[in-house]
Amino acid sequence: MPPLTGFRDFYPEECAGRNAIFSVWRSVATRYGFVEYDGPPLESLELYQKKSGAEIASQLYNFTDKGERHVALRPELTPTLARMVAERHRDFKKPLKWFAIPQVFRYERPQKGRLREHYQLNCDILGEPSLEADAENIALAIDVLRAFGLTSDDFVIRLSDRQFWVDLLIARNVPQEKWYDFFQAIDKSEREPEEKTREKLGPLADEVLGILANGAESARLDAVERSLTVRGFGACYKRDFTIVRGLAYYTGIVWEAFDRTGQFRAICGGGRYDDLLKNLGGVDMPALGFGMGDVVLGELLKARGKAPATAQTLDYFVAIADETVRENAMELVQKLRDAGKRTDFAIAIGTKLGKQLETASARGARHAIVADAKLKSGEAELKDLQTREQRTVPVASLLGVVA
Amino acid sequence: MPPLTGFRDFYPEECAGRNAIFSVWRSVATRYGFVEYDGPPLESLELYQKKSGAEIASQLYNFTDKGERHVALRPELTPTLARMVAERHRDFKKPLKWFAIPQVFRYERPQKGRLREHYQLNCDILGEPSLEADAENIALAIDVLRAFGLTSDDFVIRLSDRQFWVDLLIARNVPQEKWYDFFQAIDKSEREPEEKTREKLGPLADEVLGILANGAESARLDAVERSLTVRGFGACYKRDFTIVRGLAYYTGIVWEAFDRTGQFRAICGGGRYDDLLKNLGGVDMPALGFGMGDVVLGELLKARGKAPATAQTLDYFVAIADETVRENAMELVQKLRDAGKRTDFAIAIGTKLGKQLETASARGARHAIVADAKLKSGEAELKDLQTREQRTVPVASLLGVVA
Repeated sequence: MPPLTGFRDFYPEECAGRNAIFSVWRSVATRYGFVEYDGPPLESLELYQKKSGAEIASQLYNFTDKGERHVALRPELTPTLARMVAERHRDFKKPLKWFAIPQVFRYERPQKGRLREHYQLNCDILGEPSLEADAENIALAIDVLRAFGLTSDDFVIRLSDRQFWVDLLIARNVPQEKWYDFFQAIDKSEREPEEKTREKLGPLADEVLGILANGAESARLDAVERSLTVRGFGACYKRDFTIVRGLAYYTGIVWEAFDRTGQFRAICGGGRYDDLLKNLGGVDMPALGFGMGDVVLGELLKARGKAPATAQTLDYFVAIADETVRENAMELVQKLRDAGKRTDFAIAIGTKLGKQLETASARGARHAIVADAKLKSGEAELKDLQTREQRTVPVASLLGVVA
Repeated sequence: MPPLTGFRDFYPEECAGRNAIFSVWRSVATRYGFVEYDGPPLESLELYQKKSGAEIASQLYNFTDKGERHVALRPELTPTLARMVAERHRDFKKPLKWFAIPQVFRYERPQKGRLREHYQLNCDILGEPSLEADAENIALAIDVLRAFGLTSDDFVIRLSDRQFWVDLLIARNVPQEKWYDFFQAIDKSEREPEEKTREKLGPLADEVLGILANGAESARLDAVERSLTVRGFGACYKRDFTIVRGLAYYTGIVWEAFDRTGQFRAICGGGRYDDLLKNLGGVDMPALGFGMGDVVLGELLKARGKAPATAQTLDYFVAIADETVRENAMELVQKLRDAGKRTDFAIAIGTKLGKQLETASARGARHAIVADAKLKSGEAELKDLQTREQRTVPVASLLGVVA
């Protein structure tokens, strides 16, 4: 029986791949001074409805629980973050640099290859208005990608300034209720014929298409780009006003990372959302962040031959060649484990030695220890499963720190 | 705003505590040759209803999704394991030694301190009928507790044999439909007055109470106890036929670990469930496993002063004493991070040096690097935040492997 449509089973190999990604995420975020937090996978529906983004509401995995509460599986972690920070913001020194690796959910019409869950690295900086915070967050995303072995030849950060567009809309007297459609038109401009985009943009079409093609001045982007260049990431970004991010709550610098070939959807993206905490949690605090999912990243790494190694390994497999020494062998297994060695053995009594050695290799053991009558006098056969070399060694030598 | 009733927020300190527990779980399970897997947090309701345990069904966090599917947040991982193994059991060498750390859910009437979610270490051995597998699983549980610094003075495994009771029920001609009540009576016998237990047990009362008080012969328990003793765990268990495990699917050795003072609920428990895979997934495979939750364990560790350390630390905090060298400081920050150092800095421009050093200490940095005009000639002030000693050092010396 398969899992529910859109959900993944993680067999040991896939689980090791997932965990290897988590491990890189965690390690780089920690190196940047971020600390990990998490929230519940289930929240009140209200928490998500408060947040304007209509796109999200229609894709929520929401339901009514046995207590008649309207609840939803989290589609993203930012509302939870806003809720948590509103509750205890006085307890933390600003800026907060927090990261999390939640599994998030959406209910979409099932399509081939479209999942209803994925894991997402979330890195947010709260309480810091300066553009250096934007740069810090983007630099972290770049270093996460570098940690997987990707370089500026593989990916590019498309940097944009949503506030630039807001300023333009205000200057051109575009009423606020039309902004959403405006951002949608820009967002889709890459994938739609120019005629259609022109039609949507109306009188602003010439000016906007000019900016999309040729760029524009932005002191905010200048500052962020300068900081990224100082950090050595000058080759990792390009200015691109097409990027506006779908979600309505972004207020400043926004960006997305893409692979250079354009073969995949965005690898990650984020931006500044200075008004969201006030709107959601009642605490007025500048904020920004990014999210990076495990699915597109995993596909990209696989395509580039950079998927982290997931081999399961053992230090020792104790093969029992003589059942009369099984108890001595079990004592040895325990001593090896106590010494921190990853150790397995043949549980089934009377398994043939050849079969035990096969299992040892299949489990990724580097060495087999063949337990025979010599074990009673403190010696064992140590077999290198790669070279097939074998020698008699004192048991004590197996317990040292050198495996 | 708090989270939903019965759900936990993990602020950085709590998250670090949670992760420290996960890390010990993962490390010991891996040392025993177990490999990690995971399944979806949401499964079809049918998967749980198939499994007999009526107790669980009434506590399920189930609902109907937007596609009219009857689904449930997983109350435990075993049905998922059975489903996954049934699907691909031919791909894996037996025995399978698999572990997972799922978050599991139940919908209970909200009570003070009762949660609706917790994390649970699950360790299962599939495909191995011998009692050595039972011992291996119990030894793992013991070593997990030892890895947290607990000893046989702190906890005891109460070992029992459910098959012994089944054999007795058959020998005494008790019809199968009465077995559930029988096991319930034994399970509750510790907490209920003897009169009540006698009443429930009827004609079997004398015999059963005698066994509960004085024990009984069991070759199965002899074998498991012998293996645990050989492994050095002779002081960690006692035979106790009161333990029957509530869930209907256990078939052989069953056990629970308790703290010696009896102050807490069971720390963990498990047993053999040889029929479950056949019933659930259609694959006939012997199996056993245990579950250990994070909540009782966390309370016990706290009470014994053994909660894992959760201090957030940084290798360096770069304090910028002179804004004219900010870009040089940012280059240094990047170099430190590239060298694998956990490094943070004052993002806000113009923060007073004293305040930056306070932040450095609050963030758990061991050293502050004070960046002033000297940085342009490749030198910085290195300040030990514990001793308050300060000395001028070449920047290159900060990038070495010795922090």
